[in-house]
Amino acid sequence: MAPAPESSGPVVVLVDPQLGENIGTAARAMANCGLDTLRLVRPRDNWPNERAVAAASGADAVIDNAEIYRTTEDAIADCHRVFATTARPRDMIKPVLTPREAAADMRAAEGRIAVLFGPERRGLNNDDVTLAEAVIEVPLNPDFRSLNLAQAVLLVAYEWFMAGHDGTARTLPMGATRPATKEEALGFFEHLEGELDACGFLNPPEKRPAMVRNIRNIFQRAHLTEQEVRTLRGIVSGLTTYNRRRSDST
Amino acid sequence: MAPAPESSGPVVVLVDPQLGENIGTAARAMANCGLDTLRLVRPRDNWPNERAVAAASGADAVIDNAEIYRTTEDAIADCHRVFATTARPRDMIKPVLTPREAAADMRAAEGRIAVLFGPERRGLNNDDVTLAEAVIEVPLNPDFRSLNLAQAVLLVAYEWFMAGHDGTARTLPMGATRPATKEEALGFFEHLEGELDACGFLNPPEKRPAMVRNIRNIFQRAHLTEQEVRTLRGIVSGLTTYNRRRSDST
Repeated sequence: MAPAPESSGPVVVLVDPQLGENIGTAARAMANCGLDTLRLVRPRDNWPNERAVAAASGADAVIDNAEIYRTTEDAIADCHRVFATTARPRDMIKPVLTPREAAADMRAAEGRIAVLFGPERRGLNNDDVTLAEAVIEVPLNPDFRSLNLAQAVLLVAYEWFMAGHDGTARTLPMGATRPATKEEALGFFEHLEGELDACGFLNPPEKRPAMVRNIRNIFQRAHLTEQEVRTLRGIVSGLTTYNRRRSDST
Repeated sequence: MAPAPESSGPVVVLVDPQLGENIGTAARAMANCGLDTLRLVRPRDNWPNERAVAAASGADAVIDNAEIYRTTEDAIADCHRVFATTARPRDMIKPVLTPREAAADMRAAEGRIAVLFGPERRGLNNDDVTLAEAVIEVPLNPDFRSLNLAQAVLLVAYEWFMAGHDGTARTLPMGATRPATKEEALGFFEHLEGELDACGFLNPPEKRPAMVRNIRNIFQRAHLTEQEVRTLRGIVSGLTTYNRRRSDST
């Protein structure tokens, strides 16, 4: 079996990781599977972290090159496709994949891919899950589902590695365009939500977060291209500006 | 997915394990995958071991029932089939399987199965490997093959668990709602396109058919629910009516 190409592997994003040991063991698992890009969102302890280095057992390049971010949005801004790992079902309409199914998707997808992992105790919050096109849920013994963070990283990385050895091809032909980056997608969401705030659609305020999540999830599932993001922004501008212009001219 | 039957899983045999943490994390991984029989050959530290219990994070039954043996031969005396995990090729004429291939064999085999794992630093010695019918070698990045003991246990246990499930279906949980009918989806498309015609977004006319197809494709890929179609219609109405209302009131 030839080794999988290393540069195209997914970015591993640990959100609010608590224990340096887990970060190090996750880095080691990444190196085992040919992944090299680790991003940390608000690690609880100082960084660089001695315990992480010790637990990495030689996966120094992964640890040394780890990047620190203040928000999950920042950590995935340059990514085109995002998966969120969850241990329990969320009340969201979003595809739920096993690591094996997700790995097949990753191998077929274009652009940079990120996989989000939540903190040890509570997992990802719903806003972070909303940033993803799909959820990865590891099939486990229903009587004992509590999976260690580094073990979760290993299973996703391992399936990605394994998927490089047999041809799986579920593709989304994109022609001359490319997948939208998350920064582009978020720009559209904020544009749309700004207009929806202006017209009162997102009232009352206590319902706004859930409404925003539901709307974003519709578009996340569509795997938007860069061209489509521009089309959607054009639609929002068209629908609002035209009617405003009517307003101004009367 | 139905849980895999728990009684038929392989026995996990850790030979000369050094760190209690690794034993505990291995026990947790076993419980994650529905395995319950752990045997320890000459654990370096005292047993029971506090660090193992802490790292097991609730997989207490596996730890409490762990059995201690003085030799590997004793630990596998009642087993019918033995696999030995190795990180490097041994000079032995013995089948070498991936964890996935081994899992298929285990599911097909009759009798009690054992999987041997060596100590953290050096792996199984050749005499222990010789006790096995086949070797399990995890396919890993050839540049970084050093796999943590508990991670190795996890991968073998995970593949065993996965092999018990037939074709896992990719699912799209919809909660209390249901997929939109095509009639409902078309109703939304026509509503949107009517407003886009009104504001001139779909000009010039010769480009209109392709633009309409592109826009519809975005939403087709999202597999809209009935509730989401209503949300999207509400958004279009919100964006247009609000601005029209401003127009009417001036």
